[in-house]
Parts: sequence; structure tokens; C-alpha cells
Amino acid sequence: MSQTDRSELMDKIASLCKRRGFIFQDSEIYGGQNGFWDYGPLGTELKRNVREAWWQDMIARHDPLDAPEGAPHAFQMVGVETTIIMNPQVWKASGHFDLFVDKMVDCKAAKKRYRHDHVYGRWITGKRKSKEGESDPIRVFVTAVGDKPEIEAQALAFFGLKKKYADRLEWESDVINLTEIPVEDYGIVVAPEATETGTLTAPRDFNLMFKTIIGALGTVEDTAYLRPETAQGIFVNFKNVVDSSRVKLPLGICQVGKSFRNEITPRHFTFRSREFEQMEIEFFCSPDESQEWYTYWRNRRYSWYIELGIPEEKLILREHHKDELAHYSVGTADIEYAFPFLIEGEYGELEGVAHRGDFDLRSHMEGKLKATDEGTLEVELNEHGQPKYRGSGKDLTYFDDQTRERFIPHVVEPSAGADRATLAFICEAYHEDKQPDDKGNMQTRVVMKFHPRLAPIKAAVFPLVKKDGQPEKAKEVFRSLKSAGLNVTYDEQGAIGRRYRRQDEIGTPWCITIDGDTLEQGTVTIRDRDSLEQVLVKVEDVTDEILRRLR
Amino acid sequence: MSQTDRSELMDKIASLCKRRGFIFQDSEIYGGQNGFWDYGPLGTELKRNVREAWWQDMIARHDPLDAPEGAPHAFQMVGVETTIIMNPQVWKASGHFDLFVDKMVDCKAAKKRYRHDHVYGRWITGKRKSKEGESDPIRVFVTAVGDKPEIEAQALAFFGLKKKYADRLEWESDVINLTEIPVEDYGIVVAPEATETGTLTAPRDFNLMFKTIIGALGTVEDTAYLRPETAQGIFVNFKNVVDSSRVKLPLGICQVGKSFRNEITPRHFTFRSREFEQMEIEFFCSPDESQEWYTYWRNRRYSWYIELGIPEEKLILREHHKDELAHYSVGTADIEYAFPFLIEGEYGELEGVAHRGDFDLRSHMEGKLKATDEGTLEVELNEHGQPKYRGSGKDLTYFDDQTRERFIPHVVEPSAGADRATLAFICEAYHEDKQPDDKGNMQTRVVMKFHPRLAPIKAAVFPLVKKDGQPEKAKEVFRSLKSAGLNVTYDEQGAIGRRYRRQDEIGTPWCITIDGDTLEQGTVTIRDRDSLEQVLVKVEDVTDEILRRLR
Repeated sequence: MSQTDRSELMDKIASLCKRRGFIFQDSEIYGGQNGFWDYGPLGTELKRNVREAWWQDMIARHDPLDAPEGAPHAFQMVGVETTIIMNPQVWKASGHFDLFVDKMVDCKAAKKRYRHDHVYGRWITGKRKSKEGESDPIRVFVTAVGDKPEIEAQALAFFGLKKKYADRLEWESDVINLTEIPVEDYGIVVAPEATETGTLTAPRDFNLMFKTIIGALGTVEDTAYLRPETAQGIFVNFKNVVDSSRVKLPLGICQVGKSFRNEITPRHFTFRSREFEQMEIEFFCSPDESQEWYTYWRNRRYSWYIELGIPEEKLILREHHKDELAHYSVGTADIEYAFPFLIEGEYGELEGVAHRGDFDLRSHMEGKLKATDEGTLEVELNEHGQPKYRGSGKDLTYFDDQTRERFIPHVVEPSAGADRATLAFICEAYHEDKQPDDKGNMQTRVVMKFHPRLAPIKAAVFPLVKKDGQPEKAKEVFRSLKSAGLNVTYDEQGAIGRRYRRQDEIGTPWCITIDGDTLEQGTVTIRDRDSLEQVLVKVEDVTDEILRRLR
Repeated sequence: MSQTDRSELMDKIASLCKRRGFIFQDSEIYGGQNGFWDYGPLGTELKRNVREAWWQDMIARHDPLDAPEGAPHAFQMVGVETTIIMNPQVWKASGHFDLFVDKMVDCKAAKKRYRHDHVYGRWITGKRKSKEGESDPIRVFVTAVGDKPEIEAQALAFFGLKKKYADRLEWESDVINLTEIPVEDYGIVVAPEATETGTLTAPRDFNLMFKTIIGALGTVEDTAYLRPETAQGIFVNFKNVVDSSRVKLPLGICQVGKSFRNEITPRHFTFRSREFEQMEIEFFCSPDESQEWYTYWRNRRYSWYIELGIPEEKLILREHHKDELAHYSVGTADIEYAFPFLIEGEYGELEGVAHRGDFDLRSHMEGKLKATDEGTLEVELNEHGQPKYRGSGKDLTYFDDQTRERFIPHVVEPSAGADRATLAFICEAYHEDKQPDDKGNMQTRVVMKFHPRLAPIKAAVFPLVKKDGQPEKAKEVFRSLKSAGLNVTYDEQGAIGRRYRRQDEIGTPWCITIDGDTLEQGTVTIRDRDSLEQVLVKVEDVTDEILRRLR
């Protein structure tokens, strides 16, 4: 698919999301709020289904007595719900207070701020016209604004060259991450919306945690943070959960909830939002087994998306290179999806599965940690030789009563984004095909091919006509489906073809039509959203048939 | 129940909540965080069940084709999920920016801050010793710290009297709300932790919204607020929902989500927290019918708590007096529960059901409103005669295609607290009785009598002994229950009586025991938590029997 097609597709998806009540811009009547999105009625049902699929598959239906396929042995899974605002000390010990930063650069000309790693560009070599004529070749870094011709024009202007001398420019590489460029070269960077060079500042750290003040005194000591991840709420409760809940390691403690990151440049629809929802598992296990559990969770979480309808060719499991890894981690893999707003061949992260060693529990025991040259962890000291930030000092070790060993558990963390998963399912569901309308003319049909478990509405019930007892019969079928706990809808408005299209566009897997035959022969038609196949089913079997198809 | 008994009961409940993993102090290993609480594994399941009961009863199982009992006619219910951080203009138009305040007073001696309406006290009259001997009687206000003897001692000290002259003090009234006391009298108030008078400041406004800053610039224009209620997210999306969702009035738009209030004095366990979860319905209807809908929702929401196990004698529906009502409201009722941490005869709010007229939608159309002398609403003007805060300017009216009328819908708002409901269900569930232990000695049994729909775990499966194939059979039963979607547990540790007690203490309604008869005669014993009745059921019928009991 060409870049233009991909971008058009994304526009169509965003427009459908608004038109049919999946996703709205937050506070839209006030002009919106950059990086914040609201879910309308269908989006809310869809996202509920995504969360519920995760909760059911990871926790509720998990059998603690048997090892699932691929797992070293049986394990337990429990849930917690912890607060968004925690004791600020948590973020000092965890390292977020010092390290949860993005590099940002400011453009003095456009008065805009960019995430440093989002300002990509190209090195070019050219010869700049000096007062004495042509000077020596110099290397120049130009940010990639739009397509090459535009950059070329900027570069030509920078070198003081006319268009006909464009071949004097040598493009060294396609796309370079700005973070790789030494700071002293920034002076000649052309920023995305600037018309001259030298407008970008050197990169500075910007902490992504939203700050607030607790209580009425408003002093610095009352500063608190909105959590940037739900994980820390699990770590600080590890001991409480183990002490209260008759659980043993290996143990997954899971949480679904909102997190907040003050992103410098939110973008790509809901993909990079400032307020978002996470579905996180912190899986605690013995250090000896952590490598095996890492492999297990990486594969299991990858399969989860496949099972819910993301095709393998659009989903990659990207192992981080050794030098990408945090010092405490022996492995991290990202599960990434080929979102249509990215360029061909690029993938966006849905979930990270990280082997975190004992880093988190150790930090909360002892204080903020740093790696030694030998690769072990030590408490970081301040200039006076005291611990920089103290951990809780509480014993967070675990005693294994089988092996009679005490250890700090290792952690494997599969951390998924509920909004990103929802967006991936939306993008993947979007299809167009040609189907005849009520008059037999071929029309473009927009159909959201959601996995039935995720579809906001499972079935729609239509009387073919608004008379002959059909609406009454259809309402009976509707109520029977509803009392089986299914989210169903009833529609008697308009031609049957239009009613089908309305349901196709919101991804309802099955439409059930009550017609003359229903009253005479006791049958209804079930029409499949994807195959368009229509089958006759006895009216009394409809609910069982829909439940069967859902399983 | 005496005050001491009530307070002991509350201590027992809080201790059970921690011991069994219902509720933990937030960030406990760091000394906690005042006004914030975390849910452990069982608390998370319980709260999920509370939320799910609300969502199922209000939205998922609602039949839009038929009027429920007591409703004027059929109506629709849909859900939304909107952000915690919204465009700050929302809070200016809604009135929260100016008016969402508590009065606070500071104690200069104890360096503490109190909510003005939480500092209660007594008027007393006494005679103060002057230099010339006894002076004229003066009235003095003393805050109610502890029991009367302690206040008396303070009063005696204030009047310079010895204990034997205590009868010279005249106690005028039992408890007076400090807000009723004129400001000029504060000078002689004795604050809760002060030892002298005159330490309390005059009351000041304190806005309860938590502030934060969006983006990296950190200017005043980037100040935003954590929502103090989920309701405004619904109001600003009203038009989007109506335009996208094929809905008609009357229509309930519902939301479950976190809200934040910077309470000056959080207290009473999770009752008054700074971070809490709401379950709100904004019910939009024609102005002509709003009074009827108000009555309907008030009664329906009251019944909801009764159905889930709160007894009528502990639940009141308190209609606000005319002069308690906001100017735009024709009625508000609080649903209140007799929490054990309150004094006898006092009730704490679980839910408010408010008739809000067209106040909210009008404010978001036009700007911050104020009431005129005639009782109508007008946009509030600033000193230059311009609107103080502009609303969105967007048309939020609704066109009724049946009556061909256009109007600003009226709103009835049933606003429930998920944490408060959870706490009420916990308090109500707590029971103690005497039961024989495994040796026949009578012991105190702690039993949480949760409604089965709310119980975190629905059934526990025990093999009587760890041999003779009983564990294998018990695991089969366990898996059969689990695959029916039930949250069940398996336990083979310890004497059967102890296993019963463990389940009683967390409110598991049914314990299923597999014994010798199971393998010989194919029967299992189901024991009821409340009646202690044990019945034999065929092993193949267990799952159906539990499902039947749950319905």
C-alpha cells in the first residue's frame, strides 16, 4: 500500500470512529485537548471487551492447578487496583524521578517543542558559497520535512546554490535519528517549521510525569505525581499480596488502569496519548526460572493478539539488541503492529515484555539503584556518600517453603496498552468491499471485521417489515438474546440492505432477520458479516446458535 | 450498638480488609499516603463485581424496548469513557473553577488544617475571673475534642476556674456546626489539637480540584485539572453521542471512572478519599417529564442497594430541603447508609440523585451561569460586562422528531461512589457468631455475608482428605465450575473446619466437599455460608446447582 493510501486509510478510520461513536476528541466542543481522547458508546463497549478479554484470558479463566502449554509449571494469577497518585518516594526509589525523561529540543523560530528522537533528518555534504567563491565541502544535517524535494530546496538555500546545482549535494543516508548527531552540529539543523538554520536548542531533559500538589498547604514537600505506569503500584504491594492472599511463587499480579505521561508531542490518533490505559502483569518467580518464564510470556502474549484477529504478517515480536537493554534486564521484546499511520515497514509498539531481574523489588527495599562496572546493582550515593534516595527499608524477599530458600524474586513484565490494542483492533477490522445495494447497484461497503469476542454488538435483530406480527416476534428474539447476557440491538428502520450496512460499519458479526417464514415456518435468517452467508435457523434455536458461534 | 462497639467493629473490619487482601493503605511500605487506598486481590474482585453489577443492571441488561416498572416509558442507556484531564475551559463553564471549594480553617498552634464544617463544638456560658474578681458571664465556643470531661477541663482553664466550680459552666447545646458561628467569635475557639484559644484562622476558600501542567512549557495557560467528577465528561460529549449513536431521548449516558478531590481532611477509611471511583448516570429527558424521571431514578437507585443486601433499616433516602437545593434544582435526594464509623443515627452518603434542570448543558452552551432574582439562569458577566467565562458556543439543544420541538434537555443525575458502595457492602457483610471448631469447642466465627453476586469467590472446592483419589475428583469439580466462568478456589490444606473458616472470612457463599461418598455414590456436599446447611448433590450437577443459586 502506498504512503498516500495508508494515510487516506487512517483518515477514513478516524472519521468512522467519530461518525459511529467509537472515539471522539476529548473536550471537542472546547476545541479539544491535545493528546486526550474520549470513547463514545461503541468505543466504550469495544474497549470494555478488550480489557475483559485480557482479564478473562490472563486471570479469571487461568487454571492455577495446571501448567498451560509452554509454561515450565503451574502458577497463580491475581489482580490488584492501586491508586494513580502514590507516595512520591515511590518514584524516587524506582528511578522515575531522575530518569523518566525525554530529551526535548526547542525551535526558537517556530516557538515549538519537539521530542528529540522525533526530529529525524539527513546528512548531506555540499559546498557552501563563500565570499571568495566556493569553499570546502561541509557536512550539514537537515531535518526531514516532507519529501526530498522540499529538503533539497532548503539545503540548496543553505548552501546558497541554485536548483540546477542540486547534483552538488550528496545525500549520505536516508534517515538518521537526531539523537545520534553530536550537539555541536545542531547549529546548522533546519527545524521542521523553520525557514532558517540554527533555530534548534541543544536537547534538554524533560520529566514526563505530571505533577500535582496534595493537600491545601501547597509546599514543595506536597508535590506528587500521576503514575506513568501501573507497575509500581504492584511492586510496592508485593509483600502485602503475598502476606494476605495464600499465594505462592510463581505468581502474576495484574492490574488494569490509567497512566499518564506528559508527552511532548502526542500524535497518531490515540497511539501516543497523554492519558492512556495499561494492562500490566508483573510475574514474580525464582531467579533460576526467570529466563524460561520470560520466553513463555513473550510467546504467550504474542499469541494473544493473533487469537484476537491480528494477522501474523502484521505483528512482529522484536527482541531488543543487547545494547538496547536496561543494565538489569536479560531480555526485552516488543510486540509491534504495522499501524497504517506509520510508513511501510515500520511497526508501533502494542506491548513490551521485559525481563526485569530483581531490579524493582531491590530498589524498593534499598533505594535507587545503579549498575556497577561488574554489572551488579548498588544503591546510588549522593555527594555526601549517603544513599541518594532511600527505598522503603522493608524486607521484600520471598521464602520458598519447598526449597527452604529466601530470595528477591525476579520479575517478568508483560505490559500492554489497552488503547493501543483497541486501536490496532480497529485498524485491522477496517475493510471495504463492493456489494449490491437494495436496488442491485454495486456500492462500496465499509465493514469492521472485529473478532466476535471484541465486537461491541454481537447481533442485530430486524423484522423484515413493520407489520404482520414481525416486530413483535423480532422483539421476542431480541429479548431472548439479551437475557443470555449478549449485547444485541433491535432495528426496524429503513430498507433491510441499509440496516445490514449500518451493522457492517460497526462490526456486528450477525444480523438476524424475522420475516414471513418466521411466523409460518418458525425460521429466521442469520446473516454473517464477513462471508455474507445466510442460513435458516429455527427461531427457538437462535440464542443457542449465536452463543455457539461466539465460543 | 454503643459508640465504643461501633468503633471496635470498624477496627475489626479494617483489620480484616488488610489481613485478607481486600484493602491496603496506598504505598504502605513508604508510610502510606493520606487519603489514598489500594485494593488487594479479593478487594479487586469485590470492586469489579460492584462495578459490574451496576453496569449490568443499568446498561447491559437494560431493555430499551420496554418501560421498566415505575418508569414513565421506555428509554435508552449507553456508556462512555472520557478522560480525567479535560480542557480546563470545561471547569470554568461548569462553575467548578470558581465554586468547587471547601471552607478551610488553619490552626496556628497545631499547624494543622481543618475542613470548616468538620470542626464541631459547643457553646458554653461561664464567668471569667477578671482582675477585680468575677466578671459578667460570657459565651464561649469550644470545639468538641473527645468526651465532655476533656472539653470541660479546657473550658475551666479558659475561664480560670478550678474543677470544683464546674457547675458554673452552662452547656447550651450539644453539637453545633462551626459554620453557624459568626467569624468574630473565632478568637475564642479552642481547636482540636490546640491547648489555648484563638489559634484558628477565619475560614478561607480552598478549591478541591488537583492542578497539573500539560506540556513542557509550564506556563499558567497550560494549567489543567484532574476531574472532580465524571459527569462533565458526559455533558461535553452529549452532542457527539446523540449525533453518532442513533439514540433518542430519554437517554441515559453512563460512565465509570476515577475522580479526584483534594480533600482537606480525608478520613473514615476509604469513605472520604482523595482518589475515588464514580459510577454516574446523566439521564437526559424532556423538561416536561423531568420531575417524573427524578422520582423514578431516586426510587430505582435506592432499591439497587437493597437488592444487593443493604437492609432497609440502615439505608435512608434523604430528600434535601428546599433551601439546601442548588438554585437550578427542583429536587435532590441522598441515598445514605449507617456506616459503623459514624455516630449512632448518622448516615454517610452512598449516592446523590439530583434533578439538575438544564443547568449543565446551558452552561456549556453559553458560559458560567448564575441565577437571577426571578430564578432563571443568566450568563455571569465580569466587571466589563462581558461573559465571565464563555461556554463552548456550540448548540447543545435536542430536536424531538415526534413532537417537532427543540429544547435543552433536562438532566437527572444518579451519581454513585464505587468505593463507598464497596465499603458499605463490606461493613454490612461483617458478622460474628459462635460455631464449634473441629474439636467441638465453640469459637467465634467471622463471616462476610456478601450477596452472592458480589462475593469475590463464588465457591471453594475441598477434598476431605489428600488421598483416595479425592484431590483428583475435587480438581475435576473445580475445573467444571471454572469453565462455567465462575471465580472459584481449590483448597486441600488443613482440617476441613479451618478451611470453612477461611472461606467464611472472605465471604465465599458455598463450600463443596469431595469425600469418600463422592467416589462411591457420586455425591458431594454443598455447605451454605450463612445457614450452614449442608446438602448432598450429585457430582455431575454441582456446576448447575451453583449457577442456579447464583441466579
